[in-house]
Amino acid sequence: MSRERLCIALDVMGGDRAPDAVIKAALLALDKYPDTRFLLYGDERRIAPLLERHAGLKGCSEVHHTPDVISNDEKPSVALRKGRRSSMALGIMAVRDNKADALVSAGNTGALMAMSKILLKTLPGIDRPAITGVLPTKKDNCIMLDIGANVDCDANNLFQFAVMGDAFARVMLGLPSPRIRLLNIGTEEAKGNESVREAAEMLRTVGNGLNFCGHIEGNAIAEGAADVIVTDGFSGNIALKTLEGTASMCVSFLRDAYKSSFLAWLGYLCSRAALRKFATKLDPRLHNGAMLLGLNGIVVKSHGGMDETGIANAIGTALRLASNDINAKIVEEMERSESALYPEA
Amino acid sequence: MSRERLCIALDVMGGDRAPDAVIKAALLALDKYPDTRFLLYGDERRIAPLLERHAGLKGCSEVHHTPDVISNDEKPSVALRKGRRSSMALGIMAVRDNKADALVSAGNTGALMAMSKILLKTLPGIDRPAITGVLPTKKDNCIMLDIGANVDCDANNLFQFAVMGDAFARVMLGLPSPRIRLLNIGTEEAKGNESVREAAEMLRTVGNGLNFCGHIEGNAIAEGAADVIVTDGFSGNIALKTLEGTASMCVSFLRDAYKSSFLAWLGYLCSRAALRKFATKLDPRLHNGAMLLGLNGIVVKSHGGMDETGIANAIGTALRLASNDINAKIVEEMERSESALYPEA
Repeated sequence: MSRERLCIALDVMGGDRAPDAVIKAALLALDKYPDTRFLLYGDERRIAPLLERHAGLKGCSEVHHTPDVISNDEKPSVALRKGRRSSMALGIMAVRDNKADALVSAGNTGALMAMSKILLKTLPGIDRPAITGVLPTKKDNCIMLDIGANVDCDANNLFQFAVMGDAFARVMLGLPSPRIRLLNIGTEEAKGNESVREAAEMLRTVGNGLNFCGHIEGNAIAEGAADVIVTDGFSGNIALKTLEGTASMCVSFLRDAYKSSFLAWLGYLCSRAALRKFATKLDPRLHNGAMLLGLNGIVVKSHGGMDETGIANAIGTALRLASNDINAKIVEEMERSESALYPEA
Repeated sequence: MSRERLCIALDVMGGDRAPDAVIKAALLALDKYPDTRFLLYGDERRIAPLLERHAGLKGCSEVHHTPDVISNDEKPSVALRKGRRSSMALGIMAVRDNKADALVSAGNTGALMAMSKILLKTLPGIDRPAITGVLPTKKDNCIMLDIGANVDCDANNLFQFAVMGDAFARVMLGLPSPRIRLLNIGTEEAKGNESVREAAEMLRTVGNGLNFCGHIEGNAIAEGAADVIVTDGFSGNIALKTLEGTASMCVSFLRDAYKSSFLAWLGYLCSRAALRKFATKLDPRLHNGAMLLGLNGIVVKSHGGMDETGIANAIGTALRLASNDINAKIVEEMERSESALYPEA
């Protein structure tokens, strides 16, 4: 981490296993990044006893009490009206007011996005924020955006996602020139809907700086054919969740196969250590932490069902993005791309 | 099979392994369904020597010579203009003229759909045909449509897909009341784009006869949460291909794991028989055969890269659909649904 003592705001009440899993995640993250400070937003009566057991964490944390929690089934519109004093809203305000370098929340995604848009606003040149996730492939991880925030996207939105995804992949995957592709139903130029075809044209035009490699089909995601996969939030969400569901199905088939005979079980015992590596590659906890990219501040969303390991990974993501000043990179790339696209302006 | 001596037209020149794989597939299918007759469309000089070796197949086949083939990279518009004497077009005409009960082709999907629409026309009440595929799940197989023919779909299209998918699932999965769901990015009513929300409303209204169970997210496909998954051709194609790619990634990770140590390899040898069952469940050849549903005639598309086992499965699909008169079922269900939706008409 380049800056000293980065500060992470935590929505301690967000997620299915809150507050325990969030506090334990902070402990795990502190172990790995001992210079971190935390602002803990949530119910003090529940947080205090958890902190009592961990003097190290207590020493670098400030607890900000609020009894208000946004539940998982709350509609974003209701959350906006009623949730002004919720742990989630206070966490976002901490980022807005530069008290924290990033927020991590495992709470309601729709509410988190709606509140973040209003409290943080979008970055210059960005019309809509996109949720950006990390996916496993046969080779290295890749990133995909949008994975659920924007159901309908025009070419401009997709173009901006590509610019933001490029910056994100440079930071998170450490790539000097990430291969950007548009998710489509064929690799030919004429394939797909109008937004995708127009965005491809824009990405080809802008050239300079962005390594646009054309379209990618669903089956090539897992092949590792792209580092950044750009798509609308409807298709992206479906692709991501289909990937997760299929991986889980494969593990389930495998488990059934091993249980089908004594010999198969014996084989499992022999291969167990190697199979653990297989399972690790597919472990969703290791890919946890989706950034709400395009906002004036860093907001990382953990999957709601995650345990402390998963949430700790989301905290790690937030620290990496903050220490690399991801948003400055996006603004810079956006300016360069705009002047390449509209040289007369 | 209810009717005797069903006749299948084969586009012998379609697919990456044509004509050999297509002829071998006919042999495999004949072995399983000995009453079948075949009309073979393609280059006689290449077909005749293959048939010479198999008197049984030769005895129940008629060869119709044509030197014209539609290549895989031909644009549908060009295929329409130039391909009138191609093996694919002649096969479609055989279905149109009631010389064959169904066509099976492993050729160019876009050309097959474009030609079929013009030569066969759509069924009464159906605006657009949809490509319908079979997918593996943790439980039984499910079907999904559209998987690539229609990039943009309105609510009416999706509604018609649901009706067609219902008939297809009754025949292919043998279910009395298939669970129909719309692919979406959440299960709440308010989620998704306008077409999906409106189609849901229509499906709820029509009630009678259709077992509509709401929305389904990508991760629940592999859980087996639906028998019929209805979606536009863009999202459907992406979901199907992402599923295929992820399954292939899992197999590849597993292979790497087994090769990582001697003990792991020993374990593999013990578990081999059981693992074969695992591989079988994911074998795309067993799910091969996508119907172009909604046409005045049965057209089954085999994946272009399939071997004889895969194409033989597509022939099996065609026979099952023909013997159960799938299109009569669709017309009947469409009429019933229309009078439920528009009782005043």
